[in-house]
Amino acid sequence: MDQIVDVFKIPCSGPADLRVAEALLQAGELRAQDIVAVMGKTEGNGCVNDFTRDYATRAWCDLLAPRLGISSAAVHERVALVMSGGTEGVLSPHFTIFARRASPVAGTGADKRLAVGIAFTRDFLPEELGRMAQVNATAVAVTVAMADAGIDDAADVHFVQIKCPLLTTQKIDDALRRGHTPVTHDTYESMGASRGASALGVAVALGEVEAAQLSDDDIRHDWSLYSAVASTSAGIELDNNVIIVMGMSTRARSKYVIAHGVMRDAIDVAGVRKCLREDFGIDPDTQVDALHQRVVNVLAKAEASPDGSVRGARHTMLNDSDINSTRHARAAVGAALASVLGNTALYVSGGAEHQGPPGGGPFALILRA
Amino acid sequence: MDQIVDVFKIPCSGPADLRVAEALLQAGELRAQDIVAVMGKTEGNGCVNDFTRDYATRAWCDLLAPRLGISSAAVHERVALVMSGGTEGVLSPHFTIFARRASPVAGTGADKRLAVGIAFTRDFLPEELGRMAQVNATAVAVTVAMADAGIDDAADVHFVQIKCPLLTTQKIDDALRRGHTPVTHDTYESMGASRGASALGVAVALGEVEAAQLSDDDIRHDWSLYSAVASTSAGIELDNNVIIVMGMSTRARSKYVIAHGVMRDAIDVAGVRKCLREDFGIDPDTQVDALHQRVVNVLAKAEASPDGSVRGARHTMLNDSDINSTRHARAAVGAALASVLGNTALYVSGGAEHQGPPGGGPFALILRA
Amino acid sequence: MDQIVDVFKIPCSGPADLRVAEALLQAGELRAQDIVAVMGKTEGNGCVNDFTRDYATRAWCDLLAPRLGISSAAVHERVALVMSGGTEGVLSPHFTIFARRASPVAGTGADKRLAVGIAFTRDFLPEELGRMAQVNATAVAVTVAMADAGIDDAADVHFVQIKCPLLTTQKIDDALRRGHTPVTHDTYESMGASRGASALGVAVALGEVEAAQLSDDDIRHDWSLYSAVASTSAGIELDNNVIIVMGMSTRARSKYVIAHGVMRDAIDVAGVRKCLREDFGIDPDTQVDALHQRVVNVLAKAEASPDGSVRGARHTMLNDSDINSTRHARAAVGAALASVLGNTALYVSGGAEHQGPPGGGPFALILRA
Amino acid sequence: MDQIVDVFKIPCSGPADLRVAEALLQAGELRAQDIVAVMGKTEGNGCVNDFTRDYATRAWCDLLAPRLGISSAAVHERVALVMSGGTEGVLSPHFTIFARRASPVAGTGADKRLAVGIAFTRDFLPEELGRMAQVNATAVAVTVAMADAGIDDAADVHFVQIKCPLLTTQKIDDALRRGHTPVTHDTYESMGASRGASALGVAVALGEVEAAQLSDDDIRHDWSLYSAVASTSAGIELDNNVIIVMGMSTRARSKYVIAHGVMRDAIDVAGVRKCLREDFGIDPDTQVDALHQRVVNVLAKAEASPDGSVRGARHTMLNDSDINSTRHARAAVGAALASVLGNTALYVSGGAEHQGPPGGGPFALILRA
Repeated sequence: MDQIVDVFKIPCSGPADLRVAEALLQAGELRAQDIVAVMGKTEGNGCVNDFTRDYATRAWCDLLAPRLGISSAAVHERVALVMSGGTEGVLSPHFTIFARRASPVAGTGADKRLAVGIAFTRDFLPEELGRMAQVNATAVAVTVAMADAGIDDAADVHFVQIKCPLLTTQKIDDALRRGHTPVTHDTYESMGASRGASALGVAVALGEVEAAQLSDDDIRHDWSLYSAVASTSAGIELDNNVIIVMGMSTRARSKYVIAHGVMRDAIDVAGVRKCLREDFGIDPDTQVDALHQRVVNVLAKAEASPDGSVRGARHTMLNDSDINSTRHARAAVGAALASVLGNTALYVSGGAEHQGPPGGGPFALILRA
Repeated sequence: MDQIVDVFKIPCSGPADLRVAEALLQAGELRAQDIVAVMGKTEGNGCVNDFTRDYATRAWCDLLAPRLGISSAAVHERVALVMSGGTEGVLSPHFTIFARRASPVAGTGADKRLAVGIAFTRDFLPEELGRMAQVNATAVAVTVAMADAGIDDAADVHFVQIKCPLLTTQKIDDALRRGHTPVTHDTYESMGASRGASALGVAVALGEVEAAQLSDDDIRHDWSLYSAVASTSAGIELDNNVIIVMGMSTRARSKYVIAHGVMRDAIDVAGVRKCLREDFGIDPDTQVDALHQRVVNVLAKAEASPDGSVRGARHTMLNDSDINSTRHARAAVGAALASVLGNTALYVSGGAEHQGPPGGGPFALILRA
Repeated sequence: MDQIVDVFKIPCSGPADLRVAEALLQAGELRAQDIVAVMGKTEGNGCVNDFTRDYATRAWCDLLAPRLGISSAAVHERVALVMSGGTEGVLSPHFTIFARRASPVAGTGADKRLAVGIAFTRDFLPEELGRMAQVNATAVAVTVAMADAGIDDAADVHFVQIKCPLLTTQKIDDALRRGHTPVTHDTYESMGASRGASALGVAVALGEVEAAQLSDDDIRHDWSLYSAVASTSAGIELDNNVIIVMGMSTRARSKYVIAHGVMRDAIDVAGVRKCLREDFGIDPDTQVDALHQRVVNVLAKAEASPDGSVRGARHTMLNDSDINSTRHARAAVGAALASVLGNTALYVSGGAEHQGPPGGGPFALILRA
Repeated sequence: MDQIVDVFKIPCSGPADLRVAEALLQAGELRAQDIVAVMGKTEGNGCVNDFTRDYATRAWCDLLAPRLGISSAAVHERVALVMSGGTEGVLSPHFTIFARRASPVAGTGADKRLAVGIAFTRDFLPEELGRMAQVNATAVAVTVAMADAGIDDAADVHFVQIKCPLLTTQKIDDALRRGHTPVTHDTYESMGASRGASALGVAVALGEVEAAQLSDDDIRHDWSLYSAVASTSAGIELDNNVIIVMGMSTRARSKYVIAHGVMRDAIDVAGVRKCLREDFGIDPDTQVDALHQRVVNVLAKAEASPDGSVRGARHTMLNDSDINSTRHARAAVGAALASVLGNTALYVSGGAEHQGPPGGGPFALILRA
């Protein structure tokens, strides 16, 4: 059956401020039962002890539970709530809401439009994170989410957003007590391991990487293996992977379109400028009004180049013991993208392990058609 | 007498790594006696307890003292050593060396070229920082530096870089013991006060602001008062203001040119793109080679917009108690500029009080002619 | 009427983890309607953008609302929820719950026991924070809370805990828009201003400082003015002051006692050791078991000595631009106290402006009788 | 031949402030040629990008080079310069100078006094750090340093201070380019690996651990293996291990004595109190004057308990992505020790891998005899 997709980007004054969402619901512009996913940028450190993600998630559950007539906990199993912490530099905290309802008209659709699907993996054991168990379960779930979106062809997938767990000291101890070795003993490092395995799960599902040739040792080691559309984000507030697939489908009847590209490094905005011009017919220098009216959001990944340099010049992000490298990278990529789009409420998420080439990352632009 | 100006931008592996400068001196490409100024980006936090500025300054003094036949301390009084801490995001630590020697040919110069002049104020008392005493002494020194550069017309001044002191707990106590009230008791805040007063000194010298209408109360309060070419940077390692004036002069015979503009906010790179196209005839999108070959450096200021928003969207830089706002702002502006110039070894300095409009800041581009 | 006071200290695995409280309620050991105050240590940065305080507060409201048959918002007006962020060093996140119910037996009480009372001020305007308006409203509320505790004599007051608001960029702008000047434009600094004014409110209520001789200018300037029992803590999550008075009363029938003292500086544990020995008959070196069995919690304030030194040696807390001084101070005072008490789940709160002597702070010990 | 050992503890106003040392040298109280070791606490972050250690080291080399008639670089090979970054909480930046000269009187010494010896390993390759190559080379060097100190019996060794290298992004790349795998790709984590291997080198040299039973896998995994007198500190400024052995010897004729003990956890000051009473006859509560007059310094290690708790209560040091755990631990242990000794200029160094039991660490007290 065809779907009608709606996208709302709303600002907030803090992680739990959902007043604008409440107003949309009240006004009937948005229906609680249509919401399939929320992607938020919250203003924590985006690292291990970032409770703003969890806090925002709770606020969303509390908002939707009574309107859906289910418990707060059950909201989690119905809506993909992906909160990415860290609004360094100019980035502005906000939520992007994806709503979906059945179309009354059957799908003759000549045009492809934005389609959205979601899926969830089972909970992972601490020792499974950052390893093939996580890769494989994720790959299966991506396929499920594609079907949910009504997308058959991997070429029509433009972005796969995943929220995945991390290791806390408590989880590490739990694994050790049961005689298992977690992939790392460092909580911050575990975020990268979980993100990397999840991204490779996407790559496997979409045929970008052969599952048969992949092993635990490749994860966070062989950087030539990556997905060009995966965006994975680790958080303390969940134990399974939550998957959102976005793409284009003739069975979607939304007013929105999506396209994607790859940033080769943290300052590579040429691809974004090209995508605006070629995919959407907007010159970012001269058509500032069109930019403002049509661009809904960019979804992008950021990371400090693992070789310690950008275009041949040394960066200091990996040697900075006061500010984690993901925070530096979000600030940089966020500002580079904002300087093209003229907008700072962008979804830029840190840690691009196996998501795009090393030091770079995928981006997807969502626009009004 | 006419001057020949040379500019060298060199990388470093740490604050005290001057191996490239040493090689240039050894090879005779650079002569110690010609060096009038060094502007460095060092990899500290750029705030109060950033000792990388002091460390780099010491390394430069130690490098030049034997070659100039003077003491390390005396180097300070001869060369304007301006170290700006903070290479957040993609920014790459480096030094820009300005050398100057008399031209054997007298000045018929039809073309204007890059000219450089320097000057120093007296040492300030702690209670003078951030107040009119600092404004007035700076204004006088800017005039001296203009004369040193051979620039008569304020319209030919494209950048005035100032290094100014800050208040430490010790300096604050000293003032209080002597019965004086420093402008603030907060060491981090004192950096902004010193930067602001220094910038207004430039504005007064260049006729951008009327001295007669200025009082202590305007400093860091009336943001409509600013200089469009001032760049001021506070550091723990000095007690006076060090001034470098850069501009264009027919009496300069360098291979370099300079132009300036203003960023209205932290993501406003339109002016930089326009300056490249109109002042220097380079299209940053298509003439990437020309960009790489001709651009030496951009000198720019960055600050978190004091009204808490960028283009209408809330930013979190001023409410972040883990990372100071100057660090956020450098990361953002540095990446925005790097995304245009394709280069990350840029001089982006934090804290733009009275330097350009609120939330924005001046920039100057130095190119090969 | 006499009151029976109960005190529960419970651990948590995160800001919103109230599983132990839930179990106590379920088991009937604690009744929701008896809870008058909760003092929590949450694991945020304890500074401006610490949302763990707000998150914990929300969790408490959500826990108690259905059990009290009131809305979550109404819980705020009934229970004094004071969350202090920052568990630096060894400090362990936890909540201390104060419950109170009417005694079936009339008060002949020869022995004084722990008594608790609470009160709330009106909401403050941004420009009132850190000024006499906040001092005076707080003084009145302290008197109300003393009456609520059944304490007549100021000498029987051993601790006055206050939660007070801070200025955000938004609040500062609001004041400026209405033509008012907030006490500071720096959000972090506003926390100290609000804490200081609130502490002087306590001092006025208890006769430690004469209200008539106090003016706006004394706040955060004349450090000779302080309360020896005030503990104030600023947070983003409220607009008024919440007051908890703790003391000893013959009309209290609890199993708990309280005593207080003053730390002259951040490492002065001699007073705590003396208080244990003289007030409670416990030698902390030899009676480790008694210590563990009887001590419930210590409530203490910490601050970086404003003169930049501790016992004549320079400290670096006030010049550190990577870690705010309140974080340093909590880590230090927390560990010093923990090393005496053999326990790290202690209530150590940062920023002791006008709370005890400069660089020091008040402490109160709550023990089983 | 017998040695006379002198110890000087001097304050500083910054990492490169050696004015007090200069005055001692000028006054003849200290002779440059007698200095064998300097142990400094500098005010950086104590982690990877802490340049205050390097800066202080350079200042010491520059101070001593002309007085020793050797180059600055040669000072490194003659004097063990061990700079430990991080003066969190109340800790006060300072240097402890160890000087040694031949005694004119032959060694009949009935009393044992403080003796000091030093040694250096070869430079390590990046891939050797944190592995047996570093353990074994360190063990040999410890034996050399013991001989240098005139100590025959391992039981007379009370403290072995080691400064060891860390991995930077550049070093990691170098190893990878040559086809070698460094022990970790994380620069911050490499500090722990290098500290751990160095500490096990001490344990091997002193017979606390059997070399034959030790392999790469034990390093940072089997925490039951540790030295009770090792203190190791990693820094960016060197490529080899520098070893200082301190102990008691009848061949030493100093006015100083040393004793050591172990802190079981970060708040365990019972051993320090006992050591003061039993080894030196000072009651820290009542003999405050003796404490001040006799205690020169305490040398101690601090670490966040790897199991995530202190005395059964959860700590947050290992999950904090804003402040590294070594910074938390130094703040805590520094304050706990300062609260006993009444002095904040203490040598507390972070990261106690294989140095004392997990979560605890060794300490040594140096007193005037």
